[in-house]
Amino acid sequence: MNCSRVEGFRSLTRVDIALKRFLKAVESRQVKSELLPISKAAGRVLAADVVASRDLPSHDLSIVDGFAVRSIDFEHLPSEPLVLKRVGESILGKPCKATVKRLQAIAVSTGSIVPMGADSVVPVEDVTFLPRGSVLLTIRALCGQNIVLKGEDVSRGKVVLKKGACLRPQDLGLLKAMGVGKISLVAKPRVAVISTGSELVETLHKASSGQIVDINRLILSSLVTQSGAVAVDLGIVKDRKGSIITALKRAIESSDLVLVSGGSSVGQRDLIPSCVNALGKPGMLVHGVAMRPSMPTGLAVVKKTPIISLPGFPVSAMFAFLVFGRPMIGKLGGMRIVDRTETAVLADPVRGVKGFRTFIRVTLRKTPKALLAEPVRSQKSSVLMSMISADGYIIVPEDANEVLANHSVKVTLLS
Amino acid sequence: MNCSRVEGFRSLTRVDIALKRFLKAVESRQVKSELLPISKAAGRVLAADVVASRDLPSHDLSIVDGFAVRSIDFEHLPSEPLVLKRVGESILGKPCKATVKRLQAIAVSTGSIVPMGADSVVPVEDVTFLPRGSVLLTIRALCGQNIVLKGEDVSRGKVVLKKGACLRPQDLGLLKAMGVGKISLVAKPRVAVISTGSELVETLHKASSGQIVDINRLILSSLVTQSGAVAVDLGIVKDRKGSIITALKRAIESSDLVLVSGGSSVGQRDLIPSCVNALGKPGMLVHGVAMRPSMPTGLAVVKKTPIISLPGFPVSAMFAFLVFGRPMIGKLGGMRIVDRTETAVLADPVRGVKGFRTFIRVTLRKTPKALLAEPVRSQKSSVLMSMISADGYIIVPEDANEVLANHSVKVTLLS
Repeated sequence: MNCSRVEGFRSLTRVDIALKRFLKAVESRQVKSELLPISKAAGRVLAADVVASRDLPSHDLSIVDGFAVRSIDFEHLPSEPLVLKRVGESILGKPCKATVKRLQAIAVSTGSIVPMGADSVVPVEDVTFLPRGSVLLTIRALCGQNIVLKGEDVSRGKVVLKKGACLRPQDLGLLKAMGVGKISLVAKPRVAVISTGSELVETLHKASSGQIVDINRLILSSLVTQSGAVAVDLGIVKDRKGSIITALKRAIESSDLVLVSGGSSVGQRDLIPSCVNALGKPGMLVHGVAMRPSMPTGLAVVKKTPIISLPGFPVSAMFAFLVFGRPMIGKLGGMRIVDRTETAVLADPVRGVKGFRTFIRVTLRKTPKALLAEPVRSQKSSVLMSMISADGYIIVPEDANEVLANHSVKVTLLS
Repeated sequence: MNCSRVEGFRSLTRVDIALKRFLKAVESRQVKSELLPISKAAGRVLAADVVASRDLPSHDLSIVDGFAVRSIDFEHLPSEPLVLKRVGESILGKPCKATVKRLQAIAVSTGSIVPMGADSVVPVEDVTFLPRGSVLLTIRALCGQNIVLKGEDVSRGKVVLKKGACLRPQDLGLLKAMGVGKISLVAKPRVAVISTGSELVETLHKASSGQIVDINRLILSSLVTQSGAVAVDLGIVKDRKGSIITALKRAIESSDLVLVSGGSSVGQRDLIPSCVNALGKPGMLVHGVAMRPSMPTGLAVVKKTPIISLPGFPVSAMFAFLVFGRPMIGKLGGMRIVDRTETAVLADPVRGVKGFRTFIRVTLRKTPKALLAEPVRSQKSSVLMSMISADGYIIVPEDANEVLANHSVKVTLLS
C-alpha cells in the first residue's frame, strides 16, 4: 500500500469481518414495536404473525351475474333441455334467506350470496328467459361452477402474514378484509446524523471564506430515510472535544444508531475515535477498514448503541453508510434490506488495491449487444460528481488486483 | 375462449395496443411543475436542467493534513534532502492570504485552502520536524499531489443534473453544495381512487349481512403512493348512475388520473362504461382487454383526464393498475417507472390462454442450484391470497399456450 495515511492505523480490518463484529455487538438489543393503523403501515415490517380472525369470503359468493342452481338437476342434460322455475333473488350486499329446491333457480349478482341448496351458478349469458318466470338451460351446470366458497380465500385461524414480512399493498388489503384496524409493527430505527468539522457551514455566504457547505447530513439523512429508518438531524459540530462529546451523548440517548461524519481518521483533528472511547464501553470495535474509498471508517458501540464514524468526504461517507449503515438499519429494523443489482459487461479494465475491497463507480449504458458498465472518469473520494454521474458501483474484491474488460460484473444500483 | 363473459364484449384489445392508445390520448396534457425546498426533493423528478452556479470546490483544497509546498523546490531530491521554512498555517474554515515562496512551506489541514504559490501538499507523516520552524523532506512532492483543484469536482456553468432525473441522496447533496435552496420539480400526479359496489362497506359489523369490506381503495391508494403519485381517496359509491356520475365528475376535476374499481364489465350492474361515456369525449377508448386476469378493464379519457375502469376483484384491480396505471402515472409524472425483476427457473409448467396475456403469480425459492419460480396454487382472480403468497408474477404471452417447467422466466416482483 503506497498510501501514507494507512500508516497511522495500527491495522486495517477486512470489510466482512468488520461488519460481522459490528452487527454481533448489538445482538442483545431488543427490536422495538409499535401499534399503528393499517393506513400507515405500507412498507413497514410486521412485529408478529397475523392469524386470520374470519373466513374470507364469509359466505359462498357468486362470481358472475346469473342463476344459482343445483347441479344434480342437470343430470339429463344435454339429451333434454332443462327448465327451472325462478323463485327469488339474492340481492347484492344483503343477507339471503331463500333456498334453492329441486328444479328451482335463484337470480344472483357478482358478489352476492349463493343461496342454500345451490351448488352452482349459471351465467346469465347461458340462460334463455321464458314467460312466467322460468328459465331454459341447454348447458350443464357443474358443481362449484362460478362460486367462491366460504373460507376458500382465507380460512379462519390460519397464519396469513408472518412476522418480519414487509407489508405490501395487497397485505394491507388482506388486513382490512380481516377487520384489523391497528397492527403491531417493528418501530423504525431512529438514526442520529451529525457532521463535524470547523470548516463546515449550513450555507455559504462568501465563497472566499474557506468555509465548506455541509452536505453530509442531507445526504446521510436521505440515505437513512431511503433505508426505512427515521433520520434525526443533530446539526454541525465544531472540531472540539467538548462539543463532540456533548453531541454524541445526546445522540446515543435519543437514537438507535449514530452516524457521525468527519474527524474519523488518525490526524490531529480526528477527534471522533477518542471521544467515542471516552463515552463508555466497549467503544471503538474497528478503526480503519480495508476498503477504498472509506478506509478511515470507525465502528463502535457505546451503551448498546452502535456508532459509525464516517470519513468526511461525501463520497467516502456514502460508501461507509452503504457498507455498514444499511445492514445495521436492517438489523435494528428487523428487515432484510436488499440492494437493487444489475448484471453488466465491464467496458474498461479497473484496478483494485490488493488486500482492499475497492468500490468502483460505473455508469450503465444499454447497447444492442449488452448492458455496459463504464467506470466513471474520476474515482477520487474528493469528487462528488463521481457519485452524481454513476448509476451504481462494482466491487473489486480483496484478493484481486483488477477486473478485466468484457468481464461480467454485478452492479449495485445507486438509486 | 370458453368463457362466456367474453361474449359480452364486442371485441378485446391486446394489452400493448390498449396501453399505447391510452398513453397517446393524454399526449397533449402538460406536465405540471412545482418549486420545493431541496429537503423535500428526495425521489422527486427534476422539471429542468440544473446548471452549476459555482465551482466546486471554490478553492484549491488540501485532502490531507500536511504542508503546502512548491514542487519545483524538490528538483534536487532524492540526491540531497530538502529543508523548508514554515511560514504560517492555512486554517480550516478560514480564508488564506499567505503565499508560499521558494523553499517555504505552509501547514495545511484536510479541507483547508492551499495557499497561493503552492502546487503540492506533503502529508504530515512524510515530514520530519526540525528546530526553529523548519521541516525536513526526503520524498519528492509531485505537482498536484493531495490537492483537489478549484472547479475539479464541478465547474461553474456546467449542466450537473438533467431534466427528468430522479433525485438521489448525492444529487441533493450537490444541489446544497451549489447553494440551491428551492428546486423546480415535476408535480406528483394526483390520482383519485373510487370503489363502486352496493355490497361494499368500510367496516363489517355483521358477517351474515352479505356486505363486503372494500379493500380496493386501500390497495390501490397504496400502489399509487408506491408509484410516486398522490392518492386521493374519494370513497365508496353505490351502483347508481347518478352517484357514479357525480363521483366521477368530482374526480376528473380534482385529479390527473382516475381509478374506479367495480362495475367495469358488461352486466346489468356494470355502470361505469356508460357513465364515463356520458361525461364527455372521447370517453371509453378501450373496453375489454385480452389479458387474464383483468379482462373487463376499461380505459377512457374525458376532458383530457385519463380514467381506468378496473374490475372489482382486488386481484384483477391490482393487475389492471400494474399494467395500465403505473405507466400512466410514469407519463403524467415525467418519470420512467422501472419494475424490479428477477430471472428464475420455472418449477412447474403453466398454461396461458391463446390470444390473451396471462399473468401467473409465483413464489420465489432459492435452491443451491437456482432461483425457482413456483406458481401459486390458486390463480383465481377471486382469491386474494394468490397475491399475498406471491413474490411476483410471470407472463405467458399472447402467442403461447404454456410455459414449460425448467424454462428461464422473468419474474416481476410484487414488492
